[in-house]
Amino acid sequence: MGKYALGLDYGTNSCRSLIVDLADGRELAGHVFSYPSGEDGILLDPKEPNLARQNPQDYIDAFAAITEVINEARGADPGFDPYDIVGIGIDTTGSTPMPVDADGTPLGMLAEFKDNLSAMAWLWKDHTGHAEAARITEVAAEMRPHYLAKCGGTYSSEWFWSKALHCKNVAPEVFDAAHSFVEYCDWVPALLAGNTKPEAIVRSVCAAGHKAMYCEEWDGLPDAEFLGQVDPALADLRGRLYEKAVPSDHVAGRLSEAWAEKLGLKPGIAIAVGAFDAHMGAVGAGVREGTLVKILGTSTCDMMVKPAGTELADIPGVCGIVDGSILPGFYGIEAGQSAVGDIFLWFVNHLVPERYGKTADEKFDGLMEAAAKLKPGEHGLIALDWNNGNRTILVDVRLTGLLIGQTLHTEAHEVYRALIEATAFGALTIIKRIEEYGVPVREIVNCGGLATKNPLLMQIYADVTGRPMKVSRSDQTCALGAAIFGAVAAGAFHDVAAAQAAMCGVRDEAYEAKPDGESQAVYAELYELYRQLHDAFGTAEWSGRMAEMMKALIAIRERQRS
Amino acid sequence: MGKYALGLDYGTNSCRSLIVDLADGRELAGHVFSYPSGEDGILLDPKEPNLARQNPQDYIDAFAAITEVINEARGADPGFDPYDIVGIGIDTTGSTPMPVDADGTPLGMLAEFKDNLSAMAWLWKDHTGHAEAARITEVAAEMRPHYLAKCGGTYSSEWFWSKALHCKNVAPEVFDAAHSFVEYCDWVPALLAGNTKPEAIVRSVCAAGHKAMYCEEWDGLPDAEFLGQVDPALADLRGRLYEKAVPSDHVAGRLSEAWAEKLGLKPGIAIAVGAFDAHMGAVGAGVREGTLVKILGTSTCDMMVKPAGTELADIPGVCGIVDGSILPGFYGIEAGQSAVGDIFLWFVNHLVPERYGKTADEKFDGLMEAAAKLKPGEHGLIALDWNNGNRTILVDVRLTGLLIGQTLHTEAHEVYRALIEATAFGALTIIKRIEEYGVPVREIVNCGGLATKNPLLMQIYADVTGRPMKVSRSDQTCALGAAIFGAVAAGAFHDVAAAQAAMCGVRDEAYEAKPDGESQAVYAELYELYRQLHDAFGTAEWSGRMAEMMKALIAIRERQRS
Repeated sequence: MGKYALGLDYGTNSCRSLIVDLADGRELAGHVFSYPSGEDGILLDPKEPNLARQNPQDYIDAFAAITEVINEARGADPGFDPYDIVGIGIDTTGSTPMPVDADGTPLGMLAEFKDNLSAMAWLWKDHTGHAEAARITEVAAEMRPHYLAKCGGTYSSEWFWSKALHCKNVAPEVFDAAHSFVEYCDWVPALLAGNTKPEAIVRSVCAAGHKAMYCEEWDGLPDAEFLGQVDPALADLRGRLYEKAVPSDHVAGRLSEAWAEKLGLKPGIAIAVGAFDAHMGAVGAGVREGTLVKILGTSTCDMMVKPAGTELADIPGVCGIVDGSILPGFYGIEAGQSAVGDIFLWFVNHLVPERYGKTADEKFDGLMEAAAKLKPGEHGLIALDWNNGNRTILVDVRLTGLLIGQTLHTEAHEVYRALIEATAFGALTIIKRIEEYGVPVREIVNCGGLATKNPLLMQIYADVTGRPMKVSRSDQTCALGAAIFGAVAAGAFHDVAAAQAAMCGVRDEAYEAKPDGESQAVYAELYELYRQLHDAFGTAEWSGRMAEMMKALIAIRERQRS
Repeated sequence: MGKYALGLDYGTNSCRSLIVDLADGRELAGHVFSYPSGEDGILLDPKEPNLARQNPQDYIDAFAAITEVINEARGADPGFDPYDIVGIGIDTTGSTPMPVDADGTPLGMLAEFKDNLSAMAWLWKDHTGHAEAARITEVAAEMRPHYLAKCGGTYSSEWFWSKALHCKNVAPEVFDAAHSFVEYCDWVPALLAGNTKPEAIVRSVCAAGHKAMYCEEWDGLPDAEFLGQVDPALADLRGRLYEKAVPSDHVAGRLSEAWAEKLGLKPGIAIAVGAFDAHMGAVGAGVREGTLVKILGTSTCDMMVKPAGTELADIPGVCGIVDGSILPGFYGIEAGQSAVGDIFLWFVNHLVPERYGKTADEKFDGLMEAAAKLKPGEHGLIALDWNNGNRTILVDVRLTGLLIGQTLHTEAHEVYRALIEATAFGALTIIKRIEEYGVPVREIVNCGGLATKNPLLMQIYADVTGRPMKVSRSDQTCALGAAIFGAVAAGAFHDVAAAQAAMCGVRDEAYEAKPDGESQAVYAELYELYRQLHDAFGTAEWSGRMAEMMKALIAIRERQRS
């Protein structure tokens, strides 16, 4: 029996490659490859802040990380043999669809489209399709309300059909040239297996179910009549997509001779069906029934599972509930916040003076040190964590940030703490919603950079939610989760739970809510205020005019920038 | 006939001294003295952000500016003879009362109280007496609604009685030791005249009328029955205050031999009755019927006059309407914004990274240059200009700042522009309110540092209000106004209007609203949104819960800091 699995984790700005020991989850070597294109790997348009694309070539260039991680593993263990890697698992961001030709080649890699942003990969956080999302939601509410129920009641501009339709509307030359659209979590495994023809690609039920309204209950993708009502082009596209999608314990293919040689791996090893980073991250963090896995990064994902076939209501505002999207045999429940780490990065990059530090990292340290000395509520501030919209529970990208309570004495570290607290209140709002709908949260396991690098944030989360914050043992749960699926697809374990038992764990120390209860009491008061702002600016129930405020500002902004 | 008058302008952080030619208002010399005590002249308490006091000794030390300005005048004109100065006028901030002993010596200058902040001068922006202000408002609403009507419907924590009562409540040892309380605009002239005994001090109707509810209609200060209902100690204090207050064309006294010798001035020259900086500034800017003078500094004052005896309704939310407080024979109408320049300073000092510049001045230049390139509304932001509460038209110090519309791309210069616009919207709200109550604004003359140093702000004010923004010719309108009153008190002119005609003027170039009307149209939309936020967070009409939001945050902050 082989000893290792390889996990490839394609994030927003970089790709991590990890070699993991099947016996105990030990990470033999890890390597990060930063995408060379655009700004930190993202192609932007200064005139359209909603736009975020990626160059598909970067996904291939990222295979360099595999070569590197093999070298590092050799350095760490001279006896290491890359042929002991039994399987590969791959996770990516999503929904990040790419228009492809009949061979499955992304149009953005063809000379004729190399300067066309619409031919590139449409990154998960691209919100250009908000009007299309609204149209899809409207038609679904009318014709197919059960489609919406599974994705929180609102179809998002971040998702597959919104992006495909926006492509058709703004770049018909690209849409017309596209034989099909492929999520890159499906495309990368197919590429390694040597066949990217769209009809040959094994599709992830994670991507299909959470982002493309795929459900076995209604025979796969949304029906052509519904899609045709949204736009005839979508009904037509449906015929060039797929019939079936499967969980990631399935094999997507076997490593091709050509790629095996290039990468120094054993030909024919199993490549697991791809999935999104958060879903595989939840697996890497040890998700099981009752466990909420929070993946804290630029945005966050809150992941839970419930045995398939048990009763589970649709949860309003929760992004999706998909059978098999996280663990085979379980409903995967996905919620999340559109920006968390991104808000702190924005703040540090744009609004923090150098007295806190010279570099961004130093500024973060300085802010954290000063903010940690504050008592809850001492800064007198409340923020809404909506700088990138609100994913759960409002499902509305056309919301923006808000800060209230500034005086003439308010300092940057106070705002920083208020921003952290805002994300904690956002996290609590999600927990409350999920529990209200009959899914008890018995344990919270955190992973991602913020979980390990920001103790202040973790303590605030514990105090705000009144629950211990456990931290995943691995710093790379997404890549670890991918490796687990690589191992399971290779047959090294009889199921995912067995692989998790061997390879996952949490750190010994958890962040406990402060024992005197004082912080919790103050945060309970502050949460009430947060919730009032949340409901006033985020729902029409409070006041229609207030709910329109942020959208009106965006509309003026867009008009003035155009 | 003498040729010059001396104006002394005691500001928040420094005292300006100006020698002005009576023939044409030419400023022969000017000198600024920065107060040595505290932080930029302000004594603070880190535990109580509402507290702002000053050391009375600084007011005396500031006479050094007189010596300096005389030297500078000699340098500018070798023929200059300080004995050609015929009169002195003095303006100060206010309400800035000081507890004094029976000789009129401020308690803070006595050894026994030198470390007691309550024995110092209670600076205009000290808000510690907010509970006392609420009590005074409550009792007045019940017993004497006509008292409130003249001061905008709400008695402020910035004003005389709130401060005296708060002193009694938190520092009874100071209150009991105080023979009386004296505004320092009354005290400085008395000091120069050689007699500070409280019963000898000639009181300013400006200070008395705007801040202590003095009115000849009801026989001077508020009656003892009313004050006793607020607190018996106030009724008792009333007997040790004053019966009569007069405009600043009156003589407060004659320069004493002792001070004349120390300062190098002619003994016996007239010292005009003091008044507040904004009121004398309005005179220095050439205020007359139909002219709105905006004094743009750390806070702003919006000053108008209307002939006494003509019909003038009480204007809800306007700080005060007092006969003779600006010009003798006219009602003085005072409105204002609690913080304008202070908001920009706060922002630059706390939330602007060095990429805009190293020093605060460089940062302002960098922000202005970048912000000027934006179109109205292009940043997608709206702010409320309430970092120091709202003076007009809400009269509520327990309001705070708000910023809405932030994305992950929002930059500091965009926030800076939004803050400028917020103050412009605040200014427009005041103009609308005054005009609604029958006082047409036919001309706007701006003065103060922002009027001359911030062309972006002036242009935005023109575009937001749709009116030309004229700028006073003098950079030092407050000190010029003080000098005018010194000249009038000395008999050099037969009235203030004659002195203004000789000594005041506006610059040739005014800022006109952009001619295409586009900016105005966008700002009209944005003003609607500002007004919605203003009413939602500032009035109970929209929603009681929203109106309580900022106050709830302040209450939590105060509890957590205590």
